Amino acid sequence: MREIINGERFVMGTCYYPEHWDSSLWEDDLERMLQAGIEVIRIAEFAWNKIEPEEGVYTYEFFDSFLELAQKKGMKVIFCTPTATPPVWLTEKYPEVLNADQDGLLYRHGARRHYNYNSPVYQKLCRNIVEKSASHYGGHPAIIGWQIDNEVNCELDEFYSESDTLAFRHFLQEKYKTIDGLNQAWGTIFWNQTYNCWEQVYVPRKTVHNTNNPHHLLDYYRFVSDSARRFVRMQSEIIRKYCKKEDFITTNGIFGNLDNQAMQKESLDFMTYDSYPNFAYCLDDYQAEDPIKDRKWSRNLAETRAISPIFGIMEQQSGANGWTTRMEAPTPRPGQITLWTMQSIAHGADFVSYFRWRTCTVGTEMYWHGILDYSGRDNRRLREIREIARKMEGMKEIAGARYAAKVGILKDYDNIWDARQDKWHERVDKCSQKSLFAALQMTHTPFDYVYLDDETDWEELRKYEVLFYPHASILTDARMKALETYVSEGGKLVMGCRTGYKDLCGRCVMDKLPGKAAELTGTDIPEYSFVAPDDGRVLADWDGTKVEAAVFNDLLEPAGEQAEVLARYASSYYAGTPALIRNRYGKGEAYYFGGAFALDTAKVFLDKLGVGTPWRETLKLPECCELAVREKDGRRYFFVLNYAPESVKVEVKKELRELFAGELIKGEAELGAYEVKIFAE
Amino acid sequence: MREIINGERFVMGTCYYPEHWDSSLWEDDLERMLQAGIEVIRIAEFAWNKIEPEEGVYTYEFFDSFLELAQKKGMKVIFCTPTATPPVWLTEKYPEVLNADQDGLLYRHGARRHYNYNSPVYQKLCRNIVEKSASHYGGHPAIIGWQIDNEVNCELDEFYSESDTLAFRHFLQEKYKTIDGLNQAWGTIFWNQTYNCWEQVYVPRKTVHNTNNPHHLLDYYRFVSDSARRFVRMQSEIIRKYCKKEDFITTNGIFGNLDNQAMQKESLDFMTYDSYPNFAYCLDDYQAEDPIKDRKWSRNLAETRAISPIFGIMEQQSGANGWTTRMEAPTPRPGQITLWTMQSIAHGADFVSYFRWRTCTVGTEMYWHGILDYSGRDNRRLREIREIARKMEGMKEIAGARYAAKVGILKDYDNIWDARQDKWHERVDKCSQKSLFAALQMTHTPFDYVYLDDETDWEELRKYEVLFYPHASILTDARMKALETYVSEGGKLVMGCRTGYKDLCGRCVMDKLPGKAAELTGTDIPEYSFVAPDDGRVLADWDGTKVEAAVFNDLLEPAGEQAEVLARYASSYYAGTPALIRNRYGKGEAYYFGGAFALDTAKVFLDKLGVGTPWRETLKLPECCELAVREKDGRRYFFVLNYAPESVKVEVKKELRELFAGELIKGEAELGAYEVKIFAE
Amino acid sequence: MREIINGERFVMGTCYYPEHWDSSLWEDDLERMLQAGIEVIRIAEFAWNKIEPEEGVYTYEFFDSFLELAQKKGMKVIFCTPTATPPVWLTEKYPEVLNADQDGLLYRHGARRHYNYNSPVYQKLCRNIVEKSASHYGGHPAIIGWQIDNEVNCELDEFYSESDTLAFRHFLQEKYKTIDGLNQAWGTIFWNQTYNCWEQVYVPRKTVHNTNNPHHLLDYYRFVSDSARRFVRMQSEIIRKYCKKEDFITTNGIFGNLDNQAMQKESLDFMTYDSYPNFAYCLDDYQAEDPIKDRKWSRNLAETRAISPIFGIMEQQSGANGWTTRMEAPTPRPGQITLWTMQSIAHGADFVSYFRWRTCTVGTEMYWHGILDYSGRDNRRLREIREIARKMEGMKEIAGARYAAKVGILKDYDNIWDARQDKWHERVDKCSQKSLFAALQMTHTPFDYVYLDDETDWEELRKYEVLFYPHASILTDARMKALETYVSEGGKLVMGCRTGYKDLCGRCVMDKLPGKAAELTGTDIPEYSFVAPDDGRVLADWDGTKVEAAVFNDLLEPAGEQAEVLARYASSYYAGTPALIRNRYGKGEAYYFGGAFALDTAKVFLDKLGVGTPWRETLKLPECCELAVREKDGRRYFFVLNYAPESVKVEVKKELRELFAGELIKGEAELGAYEVKIFAE
Repeated sequence: MREIINGERFVMGTCYYPEHWDSSLWEDDLERMLQAGIEVIRIAEFAWNKIEPEEGVYTYEFFDSFLELAQKKGMKVIFCTPTATPPVWLTEKYPEVLNADQDGLLYRHGARRHYNYNSPVYQKLCRNIVEKSASHYGGHPAIIGWQIDNEVNCELDEFYSESDTLAFRHFLQEKYKTIDGLNQAWGTIFWNQTYNCWEQVYVPRKTVHNTNNPHHLLDYYRFVSDSARRFVRMQSEIIRKYCKKEDFITTNGIFGNLDNQAMQKESLDFMTYDSYPNFAYCLDDYQAEDPIKDRKWSRNLAETRAISPIFGIMEQQSGANGWTTRMEAPTPRPGQITLWTMQSIAHGADFVSYFRWRTCTVGTEMYWHGILDYSGRDNRRLREIREIARKMEGMKEIAGARYAAKVGILKDYDNIWDARQDKWHERVDKCSQKSLFAALQMTHTPFDYVYLDDETDWEELRKYEVLFYPHASILTDARMKALETYVSEGGKLVMGCRTGYKDLCGRCVMDKLPGKAAELTGTDIPEYSFVAPDDGRVLADWDGTKVEAAVFNDLLEPAGEQAEVLARYASSYYAGTPALIRNRYGKGEAYYFGGAFALDTAKVFLDKLGVGTPWRETLKLPECCELAVREKDGRRYFFVLNYAPESVKVEVKKELRELFAGELIKGEAELGAYEVKIFAE
Repeated sequence: MREIINGERFVMGTCYYPEHWDSSLWEDDLERMLQAGIEVIRIAEFAWNKIEPEEGVYTYEFFDSFLELAQKKGMKVIFCTPTATPPVWLTEKYPEVLNADQDGLLYRHGARRHYNYNSPVYQKLCRNIVEKSASHYGGHPAIIGWQIDNEVNCELDEFYSESDTLAFRHFLQEKYKTIDGLNQAWGTIFWNQTYNCWEQVYVPRKTVHNTNNPHHLLDYYRFVSDSARRFVRMQSEIIRKYCKKEDFITTNGIFGNLDNQAMQKESLDFMTYDSYPNFAYCLDDYQAEDPIKDRKWSRNLAETRAISPIFGIMEQQSGANGWTTRMEAPTPRPGQITLWTMQSIAHGADFVSYFRWRTCTVGTEMYWHGILDYSGRDNRRLREIREIARKMEGMKEIAGARYAAKVGILKDYDNIWDARQDKWHERVDKCSQKSLFAALQMTHTPFDYVYLDDETDWEELRKYEVLFYPHASILTDARMKALETYVSEGGKLVMGCRTGYKDLCGRCVMDKLPGKAAELTGTDIPEYSFVAPDDGRVLADWDGTKVEAAVFNDLLEPAGEQAEVLARYASSYYAGTPALIRNRYGKGEAYYFGGAFALDTAKVFLDKLGVGTPWRETLKLPECCELAVREKDGRRYFFVLNYAPESVKVEVKKELRELFAGELIKGEAELGAYEVKIFAE
Repeated sequence: MREIINGERFVMGTCYYPEHWDSSLWEDDLERMLQAGIEVIRIAEFAWNKIEPEEGVYTYEFFDSFLELAQKKGMKVIFCTPTATPPVWLTEKYPEVLNADQDGLLYRHGARRHYNYNSPVYQKLCRNIVEKSASHYGGHPAIIGWQIDNEVNCELDEFYSESDTLAFRHFLQEKYKTIDGLNQAWGTIFWNQTYNCWEQVYVPRKTVHNTNNPHHLLDYYRFVSDSARRFVRMQSEIIRKYCKKEDFITTNGIFGNLDNQAMQKESLDFMTYDSYPNFAYCLDDYQAEDPIKDRKWSRNLAETRAISPIFGIMEQQSGANGWTTRMEAPTPRPGQITLWTMQSIAHGADFVSYFRWRTCTVGTEMYWHGILDYSGRDNRRLREIREIARKMEGMKEIAGARYAAKVGILKDYDNIWDARQDKWHERVDKCSQKSLFAALQMTHTPFDYVYLDDETDWEELRKYEVLFYPHASILTDARMKALETYVSEGGKLVMGCRTGYKDLCGRCVMDKLPGKAAELTGTDIPEYSFVAPDDGRVLADWDGTKVEAAVFNDLLEPAGEQAEVLARYASSYYAGTPALIRNRYGKGEAYYFGGAFALDTAKVFLDKLGVGTPWRETLKLPECCELAVREKDGRRYFFVLNYAPESVKVEVKKELRELFAGELIKGEAELGAYEVKIFAE
């Protein structure tokens, strides 16, 4: 199976819950799946009781009989560990396994993911159930891979149980060795927070106005990530002992407070993503004026690709989302399942598994529709999926091709988690991340997210002509070293306001700003301010082009001979002050921009730096279309995805082969509502 | 007294709190009431301490002396049980009687209704205080009836104490016998929620994102209703032992999570309603664009009539509403007390009691104004009530007449409670219930609510030409049988989208939709969707008339020879698909409409089905007026109520007798701001 | 030092945290301060651990060495008690010292002000740390004064710990002696709340819909004030034992639920205020349409002056405000630090201390910017402060002058606290207080707040030509006596709707309204109502001028021969009813207005009563400028403060001396953006 996921061909799957249905339905269901082109199913992710219905009592018969049928029919199976939903016998007997809110009130049985990662009892019971499952089913020929837990850190990514406090103390002792080290790191001198001993330290508890120490919070988020990773790793190591050599281990994501890259590296063969673009059409959240809507899932797919260059879709939306309690949304329109499937593939997934075969008839999730409705009768959505299977045939040569981009956006977890708990950081970060993505989408500029850490080699960066690192408040010497080498070797790096003013603890540095980035960017920042609410939009003038310096403004001065002022503020009391500095550094250039990037600003940067719309000589597309490029053996495949509910015209400027029709085309082509076309060189 | 309530004449009352006032005021107060035409007072509903100031210590003197005075003055008394406000000595000694929030945090002494129904201690103490009160005062000649508790399920209609969990387990054991029965009913297979034993089951507790199992919630609401009914029944049975044979037992409502019909049948002689239409003018909630405003209380009165064809008003608004904490509203304007009193009478109440004689000078409720302000001086509102007494004289022939309607809206508690905890059901239900009521009001079409249960005989339905049953997600065989007979005998039934897809547990059925309603409606539903937020209003074309199919759309196909497509969707991707099917069935017709009913849609249905504006040949009214019809001995009384703050013209098309002036009238008549006229045939 | 604060010259200070910085920075910091004109620093207010790092272990060396340096450099020091941030060793060992929310959940270590005033353990530990600090440092020559705690009642001004309940019972026993006295005062007869003994009484706990007894709440707020005052007094008495005779004791405010006047009288030499006008520009709270914005801090300064005619500014804003969690705001613009400093001085402060010298690099407050940014480098803000020091030289003759006003607004804590927990009172009060202040500002009419209590002598009032007492729901005989004397001696008193309908317990009186004010105002109120939401703005006609009678309307009748109707309602159903009555009483006049005061209404009152724009013959100013007048030895100093971001013209009608330029001026003068000019007679 590994070779399939690895790109030899496209594979379609679905999520199946044999325990939800009378066993008399199983055989027919499997046959209908296979007829539709579905050759893999995922099972058992919430089925702890089907293996251990009471503590220490094991019953393997249920899945034995199902796997036997799967094997007989030729259906391949991804088997899951059931740890996302502990049984009631467990939580009642051991309430210490439950997660709690910040007030310490426990989340009770009846939903999902109500456990904490750090309870020794839960760890023991999980080790046991994974051991039992893997040792019993691990060798079954129908099984091709394993999923650990389900959606790690979904629902809640904060944990406040007593076990978490104990584990957090341990985590901090490992990190700081002495309590004084912690006091230094957390700046506890402020507000007289100094700790005398480890027993005084807790996970962030209820405080006046929810005002916890920010350095404490930052370490806490690191701790949550660490806890989740240890929990996954514990399971992975057990499964690896028992599973067949060729079987893979994965988990499905992607969620917050979690270093997915590290988790993937240490525990998984590859990452899978759960893709639900119809969230953009949720009745309560729909934003008519948002130009991005379901294209935002391309952002999530780019994030997944940054975790795991090889990845799959474990749950691809095939029906309306919605629980009995919230998230109500319409049924995907004709063409949207295809569109969103192709969106996944365009970004690099060769395995796509639909959530779920039949819609559940009971429980909170009974409106989270699968392919089939409650009756199980054939329907429009199943017909569309059959059609997708046929399309996959026509595009099979693409399997294994890699997404190709010349622009990168740098990220790192220190800054992501700092922005999570620091409103000042959050404001600038949110604005720029949203704008940069939208600008790249609307200008048809493929891009990658690239995660920096202290081990990042500059060689990993060199394939990008331009790297944006919008608001790296926290910088380290090692990361700066990689960036300096990247620039000196000819790269272009763009940094935005608020760069470099914090250290790894989230404390402000006492250097001149932008701190560790000062030399590379040739920039000094004698003054700064949030954009005053009565200033409206602050503009800067860049050779006659007005660009917005959004949210926060660093007032700049060039430092060093290579530093050149490219733009100056054009409004507010600091009009005339430099707003953008370019510093030539080795063979490359570093840019420091004094604001956050508004949408139009991001477009101007792409244009002025010469990386926007890179395929303009090949294809001319309206803004409502996404362009993604996959490349294999020197040949490029251009995915053009029309997210609009009406047909649009595109211009094919060079002769290309359209894969579904199998025709050569040059000149105008039409894409229907939600239609996707793939053009090969 | 029973004969009075039963309609021999109109009776006016008020709520009086002798314990709030120096006893020197009592005699004068009673005399002024009697002069104003008030002949009944309600007393003692929060006065536990006046009978049992400490546990086991009883002092009857206070009400003995007040009742003696009432008797002497000729004032009739409704006596209340005081169980809505347990004393502090009780809640401090037995904190288990307190209600709790879902986190388990107790609601403390100091407000009202802070108790739970299921605490054995509270039940015992309530049995005792009711026994003491009824045995001591039951034979007093001034007493004509009893009110149990006060506003059952007001303030809070959810209960999370430990006693509730214990009683809930008992309730479930009675219902399901085995824990496996409960697991089946609640679909606990989903998310691994399977229970091994009853001790693992609780009232719905705090869960992640407040995401409790929906079938659990549905049974919980049934349990709350059951608990409240048992509590009332316990009191009713005690009072019945001691009260005079001719005295009545009632309680005042109406509030949520309570099967009022069942409560009334088993425990009460009739229901009373607390009518506060001025809530429509609360400062924070006022909705300028709402065409219904205080007419919404006609909806509540229709609900009360559906509980108890004979009913009274225990609390009729006579002053500004408002607590120290919220619900601030202006003083009723001149004419509004009359308007709202006549609204109550138009819907069938012959007993109207004003809340309250004097405004309380202390406590949370000191802005909930009664007839008199703090000083007790004569005022405009008392003068208006004196005038109402005079009007009642002029209309006395109407007493005992019944509200007459040819249109019914079917309801049942299973669907009401399902909609309460299921956002998908709630959305469609809220829209249609609001629209249907508004359409009926604005077209001057009298209607009744009719509550279905498995015992409903179709004979109860036959008097209605048309029945709407907008979104009966849950259907049962017995209810379908009654409906099928109703239609086959010539009735017209209108059902809306989402009919029939659930069973009594709130689980989705695996039949073709609309499930049990498929045959009667001649309808199949191969596909469905929420109305997409970017679709705006979805319209259907019904013989050239455009009607909105709101909120959710079933895409229909006619099934069977009698099924006929009347309307097709005219927008969205399913334009052209059937949106309305009429199925001839026996002598009648069943309609299935694919959406929820918007206001204009409801008006079109009333018109096309020939039941809108039934008295168009008699009266022509502007939209701001309500028409209600009471009928007795073959004679009709037309109540015309002008809710507008300005005068309007109405056209009397047939000669009628206007009761207050006592004149025959034909042609144009004028109603002043808030004025009511009654025309008799 | 006392003489400096008392007005012999202006003194500038700053807040310094030696514990936040490497001691190698201290000397340079002090020198730079002195060069900038800063001669006083406040230290140690959160530094408990620097004196008592563990229970019973004392280390005086840190501040000894810092004070020695200060003494050497000639820097004067205000030393603080550190009780606002108890150490973690304390809260962990004695969790009973923590404050709790109303559910009883404790606020934990990690923020500030997480303690309660009533814990005996905390009181003991605080007595000890204050004793240790004062006895050790009290005689140090560098010290000139003491600050108690920090921002008493900031963050939270409600307390729900068990200690609070015990102390509350004691407070109530002192006040009411018997439990029946409490029952009477709290109207517990309503809703059967009667208490049998003190042990049943608590601080207001969680109740259904947060509906606590209003009289209970009113006493609770009095209790909180009493608790805070006792806490401050305990510290003051200890410090007084040890400090040098000439040193002062103060605390910084001002916050809610606290009788600051009483606290100041019993424990302090004078009050200091923490002035942060940039809150008006917080990103989330900014209100573009508010004409007042940062001028609202003049309202706060007037409040401070009403506490302590001599007062200082302990924290004057010098950088952007903002925590990591909230309150983000831009950096003060060039000129604003000067503007806000002069605003403080204009209202009477001769001591202004900037918060803070260096911006903290750690903790929640790291964005609450001081003068210097993280690096400590020289910057624009320090330059502006140096310039302010120079300006103070030019205006030094003003030191000691008193703010001069002819208009007063009466206030009292009974009504303030009643409005806090009573929505009806809150609505009228909020509207009138906001409007009156804005009208006074925009018409350039200096005013004072004047706090009434039962000891107020009418002589304190006589200097005001006009007193507004907008909505004194609660009145007492003693206060009415003072007001009656004030009016009879020639004063003009203006009262608004809802006057006099409550007693000191917050219970409604059964008198004719306006109760105790009926005789003085010659007014009777037979009827009243909130302004109905569909009435929009209710207007009254005052000799042809239309004034809005906002929020609530008393419908008036003149009572007595001296009563004269000045205005009548001009809309709603009560059009034509009297809305304003003037009663001649002795040599003066009392006015009763039936509504709350809207902005334009307040302007009309100022104009018609002849007290608006009192300096119109001297200066003509645009609305965006504030005029404040300080007076000394018969000479007036006119502060003109331009809050607008653009320059404006003012007209100097009489020849005046402009202090900064030192020139005589008559005719047009220009003020730049945010500029302040001071004109002397």
